[in-house]
Amino acid sequence: MAKNGKAGQPDAKQLKQYVDPFRVDGSGEFHLKSHKPGEKGDLDKDSANRIIDVNRGRLRDLQEKLYAHDRWSVLLIFQGMDAAGKDSAVEHVMSGINPQGCQVFSFKQPTSKELDHDFMWRSSIALPERGRIGIFNRSYYEELLVVRVHPQVLAQEKIPPELVTKNIWKERFEDVSAFEKYLARNGTLILKFFLNVSKEEQRKRFLDRLEDPAKNWKFSLGDVAERKMWDKYQAAYQDLIRHTSAKHAPWIVVPADHKWFARVVISSAIVSAMEKLNLKFPTVGKADMDELKKAQTALEKESPRAPR
Amino acid sequence: MAKNGKAGQPDAKQLKQYVDPFRVDGSGEFHLKSHKPGEKGDLDKDSANRIIDVNRGRLRDLQEKLYAHDRWSVLLIFQGMDAAGKDSAVEHVMSGINPQGCQVFSFKQPTSKELDHDFMWRSSIALPERGRIGIFNRSYYEELLVVRVHPQVLAQEKIPPELVTKNIWKERFEDVSAFEKYLARNGTLILKFFLNVSKEEQRKRFLDRLEDPAKNWKFSLGDVAERKMWDKYQAAYQDLIRHTSAKHAPWIVVPADHKWFARVVISSAIVSAMEKLNLKFPTVGKADMDELKKAQTALEKESPRAPR
Repeated sequence: MAKNGKAGQPDAKQLKQYVDPFRVDGSGEFHLKSHKPGEKGDLDKDSANRIIDVNRGRLRDLQEKLYAHDRWSVLLIFQGMDAAGKDSAVEHVMSGINPQGCQVFSFKQPTSKELDHDFMWRSSIALPERGRIGIFNRSYYEELLVVRVHPQVLAQEKIPPELVTKNIWKERFEDVSAFEKYLARNGTLILKFFLNVSKEEQRKRFLDRLEDPAKNWKFSLGDVAERKMWDKYQAAYQDLIRHTSAKHAPWIVVPADHKWFARVVISSAIVSAMEKLNLKFPTVGKADMDELKKAQTALEKESPRAPR
Repeated sequence: MAKNGKAGQPDAKQLKQYVDPFRVDGSGEFHLKSHKPGEKGDLDKDSANRIIDVNRGRLRDLQEKLYAHDRWSVLLIFQGMDAAGKDSAVEHVMSGINPQGCQVFSFKQPTSKELDHDFMWRSSIALPERGRIGIFNRSYYEELLVVRVHPQVLAQEKIPPELVTKNIWKERFEDVSAFEKYLARNGTLILKFFLNVSKEEQRKRFLDRLEDPAKNWKFSLGDVAERKMWDKYQAAYQDLIRHTSAKHAPWIVVPADHKWFARVVISSAIVSAMEKLNLKFPTVGKADMDELKKAQTALEKESPRAPR
């Protein structure tokens, strides 16, 4: 199979099988338990890597068209438990595309300046411009995850206390959904990836980080504390996916125990969604084309200079 | 009547009469025709100026508390036809308050960078922080006014053409309403002022700008072109006020033919809304108070230095 040749490219139908089973768009019920973190389709690591490689090439082409077309922007949101593979997925799926057309924002604990604003403010200002891909490594969804699991974090957010009622999560679901609908209406393609790793696989990856000196820096004691809240996080993820999935802003529940399979799903989802945008290089009109011809002729007539 | 004394202050009930008749919060029908631009209540210019002056003092105190309390932010939006008195209203109502706690943003024609984003992006990044008053002199509502009256402006906005349907205004009403609901839920007090000037009064003010050399700079030929679209603008204002009025984000339809009456209405609306927030200076707890006492004692014990 040619690695990048047209002949070897999985067609749209083939990509579908790596996306559709994991796509949640609000049209049906959603139960996190029916999504298996260990799923790997009919692939092994080698065949997966071939697909990832081909997808990477297609993504590079699509990004170029996105930039030239200059109407749509693409927002990719990555969420998942610690060690679910967010950073490495971004690295493997996106490397190869022109960095000028792609920006990654990693959202850590909010600063005091950020807390002086509404909770989506810091994400809003980082939204991708038309023609670009913006990647959020964590996002405003943390407001429905870590803030929900740790009520004391909510208390630090400086919201007038009389506004913090038992409806706050319902309100945030509504507000986030309305925000994404608005973005979609104005030309943002939104894809949200939940990297669904199993508790056992997280344990292995944590041990790996502790055993390998080169990976020690990725581990923090806080990660173990968060792991103790596993079930609360899973419940929070299920609830937010139920309430914020939409056709214009679907969640892709990515089986993440096999990193290579996760990357097939992620890259296939991005490629198929961008291909549907039907991006085209802008065409040059007759009048402009005549001008271009003139410029060409003038350049050809210039006497070639001797190389310095 | 003492100008700033407690005794001379109009109480909450007195202020109400200058706000309630002009407040549109979505609870009833709205017809722009029933709002008279020449309205001036029971006031004359002198009594109006006394109220404005007292309100200005109260606003200064309220702003100080808002800043110390550090939970709420206040967003004041000013819209109106050319020469409706937006700039001078901002100047007269707000001067006197600490500029550190107040920022004015005037939104002109969007730049190419701004058009690379969704239409509320440039306003979002300018939103006031907690503890501050943000003033928008024109705002994202221009997207439902000038853009609606001049369809060619919409065409320049670089939105993917397939997303620009006949539903676009309905969608924008929804999106703006959802955005304001979200801001209100997160601690923003929102007041929106439509300075309702009559066509005849605009004519007089334009002539004034043309006759007085010191005011010439405020006039542009474009203003006359826009004046020709008067009825379309009035229809657009009526439609947007109907669709975006809410208890948490009311429109105040300010009679604007008498600038002094407009300022009474605007300042009374801001003062009464901020007083309802029940802002308080943060209190110091027992333990902190003991520390403050110690610091005081230590400062008192220091031997006074000779003045240099």
